[in-house]
Amino acid sequence: MYILAINCGSSSIKGKLYPIPSQPTQPLRDCASLSVSNIASHGERIKVKVNWTEGGKGLEEEGEDGGNVEYSSLVPMLLGKLTTSGSVNKADIHYVVHRIVHGGTHEKGLVITKDHTEGLDEMDKLSEFAPLHNHHAVLAVRSCLEALPDHTSFLAFDTLFHQTIPPETYTYALPPAHKPIQMPIRKYGFHGLSYASIVRSLAGHLRKREEEINIVVAHLGSGASACCIKGGKSIDTSMGLSPLEGLIGGTRSGTIDPTAIFHMFEDPGADGGLEGIQVTKAELVFNKQSGLLALAGTTNFGLLLSRLSNPSDPEHGQAALAYSIYLDRLMGYVSQYLFKLLSTLPLSSIDGIVFSGGIGERASPLRKDVLSRFSWLGAEVDEGKNESKEIEEGVKEITKQGSGLKGWVVETDEEGWCAQLAREEFGF
Amino acid sequence: MYILAINCGSSSIKGKLYPIPSQPTQPLRDCASLSVSNIASHGERIKVKVNWTEGGKGLEEEGEDGGNVEYSSLVPMLLGKLTTSGSVNKADIHYVVHRIVHGGTHEKGLVITKDHTEGLDEMDKLSEFAPLHNHHAVLAVRSCLEALPDHTSFLAFDTLFHQTIPPETYTYALPPAHKPIQMPIRKYGFHGLSYASIVRSLAGHLRKREEEINIVVAHLGSGASACCIKGGKSIDTSMGLSPLEGLIGGTRSGTIDPTAIFHMFEDPGADGGLEGIQVTKAELVFNKQSGLLALAGTTNFGLLLSRLSNPSDPEHGQAALAYSIYLDRLMGYVSQYLFKLLSTLPLSSIDGIVFSGGIGERASPLRKDVLSRFSWLGAEVDEGKNESKEIEEGVKEITKQGSGLKGWVVETDEEGWCAQLAREEFGF
Repeated sequence: MYILAINCGSSSIKGKLYPIPSQPTQPLRDCASLSVSNIASHGERIKVKVNWTEGGKGLEEEGEDGGNVEYSSLVPMLLGKLTTSGSVNKADIHYVVHRIVHGGTHEKGLVITKDHTEGLDEMDKLSEFAPLHNHHAVLAVRSCLEALPDHTSFLAFDTLFHQTIPPETYTYALPPAHKPIQMPIRKYGFHGLSYASIVRSLAGHLRKREEEINIVVAHLGSGASACCIKGGKSIDTSMGLSPLEGLIGGTRSGTIDPTAIFHMFEDPGADGGLEGIQVTKAELVFNKQSGLLALAGTTNFGLLLSRLSNPSDPEHGQAALAYSIYLDRLMGYVSQYLFKLLSTLPLSSIDGIVFSGGIGERASPLRKDVLSRFSWLGAEVDEGKNESKEIEEGVKEITKQGSGLKGWVVETDEEGWCAQLAREEFGF
Repeated sequence: MYILAINCGSSSIKGKLYPIPSQPTQPLRDCASLSVSNIASHGERIKVKVNWTEGGKGLEEEGEDGGNVEYSSLVPMLLGKLTTSGSVNKADIHYVVHRIVHGGTHEKGLVITKDHTEGLDEMDKLSEFAPLHNHHAVLAVRSCLEALPDHTSFLAFDTLFHQTIPPETYTYALPPAHKPIQMPIRKYGFHGLSYASIVRSLAGHLRKREEEINIVVAHLGSGASACCIKGGKSIDTSMGLSPLEGLIGGTRSGTIDPTAIFHMFEDPGADGGLEGIQVTKAELVFNKQSGLLALAGTTNFGLLLSRLSNPSDPEHGQAALAYSIYLDRLMGYVSQYLFKLLSTLPLSSIDGIVFSGGIGERASPLRKDVLSRFSWLGAEVDEGKNESKEIEEGVKEITKQGSGLKGWVVETDEEGWCAQLAREEFGF
């Protein structure tokens, strides 16, 4: 018996397969990981990977042009590659857990079976609030329901971890909407599965209970957000009603003056023209054509850092400005969240600043620049540890022993946390 | 010879009249102040006041219903009241300086005469970016040009003080606009005349040069913003392209997830229906029907505090939530700006947190709540001074002697700073 965790992004799908342990006390350990990348990238072929730690033989293949693939065909294709490359049959997969970005006001995950897809219909309606995210995940859930025989699906929401944000923080100073709405206009917050997995990993490393963890986390990937975590719980986060608010992302603007919308577009409410998804042109531009792409012409943070470190690079000036804008916005959130902790906790009770996500885990100069701005609080970067790529069990301290404020790299494990939530739901 | 400073808000007009000193080293001291309030308030009659410290006899009158007055008639009426109540003739007013909210990319104020109104035409075009502000001010400039004989006008912009904000802070991560724009889409910042006057007042009180002042200012009035001032210069501020971004105001939402626009309105770009001003319905709602009004049903902060302090008031719960939301957003900016200073300056070089504007100068519980959250930095509120209404020469410290971080009330003087800028321009 296996549980499969599926994590659908707009340009990639990741998955992990876990054998269900015979005892509830045994930890979940994945036996295979799978991915498709380059989805929607015109001119680049999709890449399919399956890695087995046991029970199969890995594969790495290229497929058709990423700009031409049908999103709904990808999960069935992945399931086929997984089962033909290893000893696992489709019928052995009893549970599938899906990461869903926006769960609206739901306070726990949702169970879906072939006979009970009501929750899925509701997620389709909520797509209006996260059109570029929920829609793909719902397609994936439907694909699994068709492609796999008897199994139970579980929807794990990124919004769940932020249920503990208090009303004074999640409420916007807005009057009632001028049209019917599916759910309240408020801050929901995202990347919650990542934050929850980070709290667990750091608590494990520090041999503390999760309720004792007080940190500020910067989850910096293609999507980027920051979270203020007190007593293991989210008390503030930078994303809002949708993932657009807050930090600058690969292609997302982050927070802007809302009136910019009316100066950038003749008709900001015009349909964006995406098939099967109702999303305005302005939302598409702010989510897909802004951020690092607009500032630096690339979403590749490594390339940005390399241009930054080379003053003779023709793109050096543009890269330097893009980097300093990214850092300015990041410092704004990290510092106000650290302050939020310090206004009720002594510095000695704060476990530090955590960097995660593709950029957070790799961009050592960025981590150093953030932490050095806290040297007045005693933060001292350990250059060797910060530069080193070695990391044990997903957690690495990057400040010196005795540093007044600690810095960490913690690898996020959204799929692992999804599987954990399903395990709690189904009690295996 | 006199200079008149005019400050046009959407619901009030304030002015101050200054005799031009015979020596350039003598300070400007106003001899009269004038105001009209309740403009655009349906059901309330406008109130006209003129106070003379010398040279005339004050008056206080009510006029017609505020909802019915023609904005363009108000400045000529005020000029009439001023000259008939005192010994100053219209011909004695040689200069008029106007506060203009949005000056776009202008790096200094603009001179306007009857024969040279080009600058005014340009301000009319910029009205698109501050439709509720510039338009009224431009009407007032034109009124003065008609009502007063020979004089020179000077436009003093709220954006001027924020020219020193660096590119990494004023740049949004946005691609080029999809329609022609009058000026770059970036952070401009507002309340600059207020911030400049506060720096001067505090420097005078501390017997420092303005270039030595390092403070975080919360200008909290009907419009609210915060500013990070280092070496007497603005390095960051909460308002952006327009006055909408940032803190919660009396009727302004402050920062929201930009996508909220598309969920609140069927057609967010629809015209708001204001006469003579091109402004969308969504901008009107976010600027005029949001903020404290939406949260608490009132823009009166004193009333809010009184409901808050009375648990049996039927509005107590709503007031408490509105207050805590207002404080949460305020702390976010004040704390990140204080960190911005602390990342390059020792705490001992920081002159403190300054409260100004109608709310900042009056709401002592709010000041206490802000400063008490900095007790870990040594801030100690002096309850007596914080509660006292006494203030000498516009500056009052509200923390105890030896407090690790100081708190201040500094009365803003936008008209005085306008007159000062005109003085520097015209060399009198």
